[in-house]
Amino acid sequence: MLISNKMKMKMAKRSPIRIAFDRAMKLRQDGKEVFDYSIGNPTSRCPEQVREAILSQATTDPKVHSYMQDQGYPSVRQKIAECLNKQFGGCYTIDDIAMTVGAAGGLNNIFQSVFDPGDEVILFKPIFGAYKGYISNFDGVMVYCDCDEKTMLPSIDSFEECFTEKTKLVIVNSPGNPSGVVFKDDIARKIATIIEKKQEEFGHTIALLSDEPYRELVYDGVRSAWWPNFYKNTIVCYSYSKAASIAGERIGYLALTPGMDEHNELYRAIILSIGDLGFVNAPAISQRIAEACADLRVDASYYDGNRKLLAQGLKELGFEFPWPEGAFYLLLKAPDGDHDKFLDKLEDEGIVAVGGDAFEAPGYVRLSYCLDTSDIEKSLPHFRNVAKQYGLVE
Amino acid sequence: MLISNKMKMKMAKRSPIRIAFDRAMKLRQDGKEVFDYSIGNPTSRCPEQVREAILSQATTDPKVHSYMQDQGYPSVRQKIAECLNKQFGGCYTIDDIAMTVGAAGGLNNIFQSVFDPGDEVILFKPIFGAYKGYISNFDGVMVYCDCDEKTMLPSIDSFEECFTEKTKLVIVNSPGNPSGVVFKDDIARKIATIIEKKQEEFGHTIALLSDEPYRELVYDGVRSAWWPNFYKNTIVCYSYSKAASIAGERIGYLALTPGMDEHNELYRAIILSIGDLGFVNAPAISQRIAEACADLRVDASYYDGNRKLLAQGLKELGFEFPWPEGAFYLLLKAPDGDHDKFLDKLEDEGIVAVGGDAFEAPGYVRLSYCLDTSDIEKSLPHFRNVAKQYGLVE
Repeated sequence: MLISNKMKMKMAKRSPIRIAFDRAMKLRQDGKEVFDYSIGNPTSRCPEQVREAILSQATTDPKVHSYMQDQGYPSVRQKIAECLNKQFGGCYTIDDIAMTVGAAGGLNNIFQSVFDPGDEVILFKPIFGAYKGYISNFDGVMVYCDCDEKTMLPSIDSFEECFTEKTKLVIVNSPGNPSGVVFKDDIARKIATIIEKKQEEFGHTIALLSDEPYRELVYDGVRSAWWPNFYKNTIVCYSYSKAASIAGERIGYLALTPGMDEHNELYRAIILSIGDLGFVNAPAISQRIAEACADLRVDASYYDGNRKLLAQGLKELGFEFPWPEGAFYLLLKAPDGDHDKFLDKLEDEGIVAVGGDAFEAPGYVRLSYCLDTSDIEKSLPHFRNVAKQYGLVE
Repeated sequence: MLISNKMKMKMAKRSPIRIAFDRAMKLRQDGKEVFDYSIGNPTSRCPEQVREAILSQATTDPKVHSYMQDQGYPSVRQKIAECLNKQFGGCYTIDDIAMTVGAAGGLNNIFQSVFDPGDEVILFKPIFGAYKGYISNFDGVMVYCDCDEKTMLPSIDSFEECFTEKTKLVIVNSPGNPSGVVFKDDIARKIATIIEKKQEEFGHTIALLSDEPYRELVYDGVRSAWWPNFYKNTIVCYSYSKAASIAGERIGYLALTPGMDEHNELYRAIILSIGDLGFVNAPAISQRIAEACADLRVDASYYDGNRKLLAQGLKELGFEFPWPEGAFYLLLKAPDGDHDKFLDKLEDEGIVAVGGDAFEAPGYVRLSYCLDTSDIEKSLPHFRNVAKQYGLVE
């Protein structure tokens, strides 16, 4: 058979997120009313800078659309470095920044750079499901750290036990997908201390990979930790998909903390990976959008409104979930612990969600509340119908 | 060490194409006069449709910039299918087309879909050097078919001997990088017959992957073979990088021949690979450019002028090379067979080229003649200085 065995194994377990997305699209094509809580497809208006940056690239000059260095335009990296320094007080230069095809591209670049088959990466449950596919590309091994079921924050004792000689990376994703939970300074400090200790114990670099496409999407005055403040060997992976509502334009960056161990080798490895995996360079126009949006502070109030409406509504209906403080997700507990049955009941009411098994959170379903506010409003009576079936309301 | 052993091996042999590119950039930054024949960075004016397509996407509407299906917008795939049918008389539908992050992205999607470690792919010397990195990502094994030194066309006897039980793919690249050689119908028929025979002999699908980013760049009335006419199990890999002079915007497609063996499984595998490798989808704006340029027949006369100027000039200086009929490359023989020495002499004259070892063509250097025509003109006296040193002219 033409298809490889490895690919066949991947195909046997395709991402439930994309399956739900495709199913919702199909329902929509069939003309049915759908409340699509399945995928994080940003609906907040793009900043005006996005329009202006695209306009500025509307030319037939081939130089504007040609190859550049694999790591991206120097001026774009310069702008991003300056903005990070201004915002977080770092000392980034262009040689710390590599432009990537979104966060997904950047994550693959890091995984290809560090994993030999069997090398281990520690992830905090619940996890962003797509990591599994990315990590398996390079035969990395996922080690899961448990969390407290109420807060969805990591169990620190369990974390310490996750390390072995083969640990190369720890991934943090705050604000988090799928729970909307935010890791603040206190927990960041504890996590950093343990990695530091383990790095010393095993005598080799252990990097912290902070995947933060939702950096600005925090509510109630909460702040997500800035990891380079706590751990030197931090790699920040960022995306403009959510911050500028341009998920389809595929643009993000990797920022290596200045002075981190093996900095230059890692930067060279990332550049090589950008070429070898076939990205070649992040799309030219998208880089110009990133440059124009580098110092924006995105207005999160649109999603905040959705969050309050949905979370409050679900709470009143008697559903249980960790209160989301960031991103645009809410991890809803299946009232009887059976998420498949819960998904069926939701779908009977036109609500599409994603099963928690995709996120190592069985018994839960993920709702992405970045749909139109009016649709959330309209969906609440349907949630009520489901709540009734579980006897949560009359 | 953080960097994987596999990556360290890749880093030890970085692409000489990109090294030359970076070196030329450096020289330029230093204010030196450089004739950069090192990389295929298109200089032909972009078609007006590129500008119009970009303008049409200059909006703050998030729906225009959001995720779509991993394989790309249906309307874009529809347009491309129609254009292929019109041009080549096929019966493509949207379910045969997947939008990719350039040809480099598409190639990685195919390689990930078909290679288990040790699976073999046959390539015709001289080869496009970047294949090595792409194929090694998935531990595929390259088997090289020799070519006739004068014509740079494959030796058919040698081709037949390249097949083993592990052969999964044959790659053709016509018009070819680095030689500019074009495979016409006669050679295509011979190649197809042999693959057909070997497929029967080994009892499993062997696919032909036609990598054709230079499809339209043919000269002297020559036509490159349309492989689906000769072999059913053909996958066409296309890019708009050269056709529309938008290499930095990263857009291309894979077209599976309707009715090919394992068609649906392969299409599903490609979609999964687009997601898992972190492309997620080809950039949205770039897809709209592809849609607008789908039925363009690019004017190759600009490169043709460059080709005639350079080839004629080099011929008069006594240099040897196979006459290029397509793409924008010329594979120049080192007069004494030592390409490293030749590169040094060229560089002393400000001419940057790429060593043939990158293309499995030692003893040659590749010239990419997509620089400004006036620069080619200006470079000829410098080529003359080099020719003098080899005693080719007085």
